[in-house]
Amino acid sequence: MFSAQDARWMARAIALARRGCYTTSPNPAVGCVIVKHDRLLGEDMLLGEGCHRQAGGPHAEVFALRQAGARAEGATAYVTLEPCAHTGRTPPCAKALIDAKVARVVVACVDANPQVAGKGLAMLEAAGIMAQAGLMAEEAQTLNTGFMHRMRTGLPYVTLKLAASLDGRTALANGQSKWITGPHARRDVQRHRALSCAILSGADTVIMDNASLNVRWSELPASVASDYGEPEGFGSSTAPTLRQPLRVIIDTRNRLTPSLKLFSLPGPILLLRSHASGDFNEQVEECVLPLAPDGKLDLSALMQELGRRQINHLWVEAGAQLAGALLGQQLVHELILYQAPKLMGNSARGLFNLAPLTDMSQVIDLEWQDVRFIGNDLKLSAHIRYHIEP
Amino acid sequence: MFSAQDARWMARAIALARRGCYTTSPNPAVGCVIVKHDRLLGEDMLLGEGCHRQAGGPHAEVFALRQAGARAEGATAYVTLEPCAHTGRTPPCAKALIDAKVARVVVACVDANPQVAGKGLAMLEAAGIMAQAGLMAEEAQTLNTGFMHRMRTGLPYVTLKLAASLDGRTALANGQSKWITGPHARRDVQRHRALSCAILSGADTVIMDNASLNVRWSELPASVASDYGEPEGFGSSTAPTLRQPLRVIIDTRNRLTPSLKLFSLPGPILLLRSHASGDFNEQVEECVLPLAPDGKLDLSALMQELGRRQINHLWVEAGAQLAGALLGQQLVHELILYQAPKLMGNSARGLFNLAPLTDMSQVIDLEWQDVRFIGNDLKLSAHIRYHIEP
Repeated sequence: MFSAQDARWMARAIALARRGCYTTSPNPAVGCVIVKHDRLLGEDMLLGEGCHRQAGGPHAEVFALRQAGARAEGATAYVTLEPCAHTGRTPPCAKALIDAKVARVVVACVDANPQVAGKGLAMLEAAGIMAQAGLMAEEAQTLNTGFMHRMRTGLPYVTLKLAASLDGRTALANGQSKWITGPHARRDVQRHRALSCAILSGADTVIMDNASLNVRWSELPASVASDYGEPEGFGSSTAPTLRQPLRVIIDTRNRLTPSLKLFSLPGPILLLRSHASGDFNEQVEECVLPLAPDGKLDLSALMQELGRRQINHLWVEAGAQLAGALLGQQLVHELILYQAPKLMGNSARGLFNLAPLTDMSQVIDLEWQDVRFIGNDLKLSAHIRYHIEP
Repeated sequence: MFSAQDARWMARAIALARRGCYTTSPNPAVGCVIVKHDRLLGEDMLLGEGCHRQAGGPHAEVFALRQAGARAEGATAYVTLEPCAHTGRTPPCAKALIDAKVARVVVACVDANPQVAGKGLAMLEAAGIMAQAGLMAEEAQTLNTGFMHRMRTGLPYVTLKLAASLDGRTALANGQSKWITGPHARRDVQRHRALSCAILSGADTVIMDNASLNVRWSELPASVASDYGEPEGFGSSTAPTLRQPLRVIIDTRNRLTPSLKLFSLPGPILLLRSHASGDFNEQVEECVLPLAPDGKLDLSALMQELGRRQINHLWVEAGAQLAGALLGQQLVHELILYQAPKLMGNSARGLFNLAPLTDMSQVIDLEWQDVRFIGNDLKLSAHIRYHIEP
């Protein structure tokens, strides 16, 4: 159904899509390539390409069709996500492809939004265009894990990040933790923050570390610039086209004060409190959410609120209490653990405060995704496999 | 100095040496290949090869020279360890090579025993033989890490093995731990036990798990048979030519009783007690060693005793107390940690009881040696880098 040439062009579309990963939210990152086989030359000619950069801006297909112009007639369009069939902030892309008279559309992923899925393909087919889906679907999907998840569930995809010694300790008993992991791992964290729509943390972490929880452009690894496709925007302290993720801080005991470093840095902040104080500047939104019976914030309600705010991917940097609560309530999808080649001993602080287990069958199982060195630290990525409740 | 052909033959000698890894202690594993260049054929001809299998038995060079016979004259001998120059239980190998009139001897490692190092090479050179050392020294060295270490220090090389969840937990609070790691990891542990001269554990572990701490031939992975070179000896429940490591159990409170499974299985046991009870059969030696001021066994004294008993490589399977004490007293050289893709939470048991640290500079640093999957578990190997005391 798909040729090696098809795969080559879809790979290019995926690379284009990746350029949008740091900016398109709440929209997905999408790439498009328009190609026509030249019979005289005996090879495919690239007529146009584009990617979606920012919500409200043109979609990938529009950029590519503009470049191709009238030559798009009879061409093949490679798109990483099913072209939209509905009029949102922009007209439907499926219609643009029909108007341009392309002969064939190859799609990687079908849209995860149940209201949209399959409609773009059907619209193309109804116009007599050959529409095929599924080429390199997994690669394209991983660019939009958060978007796909939110479309299916209405909730953000949650990645919990932790850093520990090899014996699973995050800090000494007295709280000291600078630095367990090395500079390469910390730079990798900056990249994950930049890829996320929001960063969740607790008041403890913010107070203890006077944490910024922002993206520092000067600390991003070179791979971000290469994904983004415009290296000149990097290396300086400002890169205004990239977003600052929403910083979401749980502060139900209203302990945070405006003097903390967090509040002096650019980027929006959502403060979850028991009541609004009005003490903060306009970048800070104080939000009151229901509490759970134990007096703690209702974390499920928080996820619903973040889903409602179109947060696709939530990156969590939390202490043992919040990390354990999220795991215990089955709200984490993915764990990323940076392990430093160090030992700290049992008096040092552990990773997760979970309710005590009484049987090995209750242990939380993980499914390995990736193991690699980042500098001198090991980076372990795994999906959480919760036991299905009977 | 060495050609590609030299490396090829030394690699063969190292593979032969590996056959002795499960049986030669307290001697080192050594392999030897005797080769002569045939001018008519234009290639090297293998004349003889051998390995050292058991202390008291012939050395590798003797086997190889026997096969080569008179053809050894003018040949090159490749030996993984410097030929001995002294008469031990067998006559010196350097003399055997001289008597056979070989023209050249290529050696991987110089003997680590300070009383022997360099003497074999010197004896060969004095007899007009070209003697060269250092080819593939590191590969040959790793076959005899324990032997080399004991020759230099008089003490065993200590590898501490642990198995834990990804958050560094070895058992639930109630002691349950079966099974954190999978069958492949447990088989890998059997291989490490078979490679060790002795296995150290504590009474707690023996009582809690009713642990056998022996080598179960039927559970050894296939790689052992392939290293050993005689697959027919494996897969059955007995393989009498392989050794059972000495089981060394710390039982200073005299809690172990003869009914424990440990004592019904073949292989010698050294029981470290506060006094000899005479309750055990002849495979068990009760040994009284000095106690440290804290009332615990003096672990340095134990290492000296094991060195005196010619234990090259000590494999430790211990709980958090003994593991922490060995680390705290800087007696561990290497850590092997099997990490299962599971999370158990902070109420579960940790890896090392260490004295509480107050500053990040006191954290124990590790040097990565190897990271690999064993089945679905991660196996991390690292050297311990103790801070030099000022």
